[in-house]
Amino acid sequence: MQEKKAVVLSSGGMDSTTVMAIAKAEGYEIYSISFRYGQRHYHELEAAKRIAIALGAKKHLVVDMDLSRIGGSALTDDIPVPKGRDQNRMQDIPATYVPARNTIFLSYALSWAEVLGASDIFIGVNAIDYSGYPDCRPEFIQAFETMANLGTRAGVEGRSFFKIRTPLIHLTKAQIIRKGISLGIDYGMTHSCYDPAEDGKACGQCDSCLLRKKGFAEAGLDDPTMYLS
Amino acid sequence: MQEKKAVVLSSGGMDSTTVMAIAKAEGYEIYSISFRYGQRHYHELEAAKRIAIALGAKKHLVVDMDLSRIGGSALTDDIPVPKGRDQNRMQDIPATYVPARNTIFLSYALSWAEVLGASDIFIGVNAIDYSGYPDCRPEFIQAFETMANLGTRAGVEGRSFFKIRTPLIHLTKAQIIRKGISLGIDYGMTHSCYDPAEDGKACGQCDSCLLRKKGFAEAGLDDPTMYLS
Repeated sequence: MQEKKAVVLSSGGMDSTTVMAIAKAEGYEIYSISFRYGQRHYHELEAAKRIAIALGAKKHLVVDMDLSRIGGSALTDDIPVPKGRDQNRMQDIPATYVPARNTIFLSYALSWAEVLGASDIFIGVNAIDYSGYPDCRPEFIQAFETMANLGTRAGVEGRSFFKIRTPLIHLTKAQIIRKGISLGIDYGMTHSCYDPAEDGKACGQCDSCLLRKKGFAEAGLDDPTMYLS
Repeated sequence: MQEKKAVVLSSGGMDSTTVMAIAKAEGYEIYSISFRYGQRHYHELEAAKRIAIALGAKKHLVVDMDLSRIGGSALTDDIPVPKGRDQNRMQDIPATYVPARNTIFLSYALSWAEVLGASDIFIGVNAIDYSGYPDCRPEFIQAFETMANLGTRAGVEGRSFFKIRTPLIHLTKAQIIRKGISLGIDYGMTHSCYDPAEDGKACGQCDSCLLRKKGFAEAGLDDPTMYLS
């Protein structure tokens, strides 16, 4: 019997790694995809590769694309990454927002999924403990899925062949971590920081570090990350 | 008064050039965007540059992205480009279909539009004299627009800020050509062929050449293109 295939967007962080483990536990053959988009935190690409190997992905594709030529974000441009933001105000869209990033990432994943004959595209978006990005919300994901099935051969001929899978969307960071631990993930492999030091050490103060620390604290578990502060 | 801005997807072909002239005639400041995606017909990129200059675009962005690593199309892979297809059967999706190509192109255009503060994205898709690609149909474009407004800051904060403009969608090739001529376009600048010779001469037999020839014939005008056959 042919194995069912899934494309998994992998950033090298906790969420996408947990999603990959979930897809694997559901019996999918994993095709992981990462993006070199001119981001400051290129350490995440090394993490993504480690994770693809550790979780037995069939293939790991790194797509090169230079979003810094488009600009507009603290993740790709010379704009400071916000530090120490109030975690009750994270719903405000911050400077780390990359215009239409998940739309672009999902579009590539869709293209690859169509070539592979993979029906399911997994993405680790989360609408609870998140930075307020509009492209992490359920209504966006639903709209992308609709569009994907209208704009592809497999979608049209296979009558809504594609599913955009977001198993973490309604979980807290603590719940995500507990889920991942139950699936055997070593979170020491993952990288979350938006603004790491040259050696890859996490800053400890960007949104991504703050959300990670909070998640481990709430889950009552030790965070294996080395933080600068 | 600040000029209103439009991002125009430019392939260097007749349709996108006509669209650019329409956007210009409507008073938009033009930001044209093209893609180097590993296509066989790279001559179209030279045409796109010529056209941006000729039509006075404010900026012309060429985005590099290697779709050939994803594969699956005669336009990027070592698959023959179909020749001499029956024009009554062009609704069948051909081997030149590039999986999710317009989704990827529009996603980049959306990202750039958000950075520029441009509300309108023009694309020369056409659902009459076309090759049967699912991502050229009105229902796809409508779904993309909905998704774009849910997945971006400008879309969410500006309440459906983005419009995907498709002024050619219901026109025949002959109508497109007449429209372009009335706007002063020299179609000698444009390049349509999917499978040109090294010197850029058009093959004359691919879908794109056949549709172009038919358009000029129906419009009762001379096609300035040099064809091999």
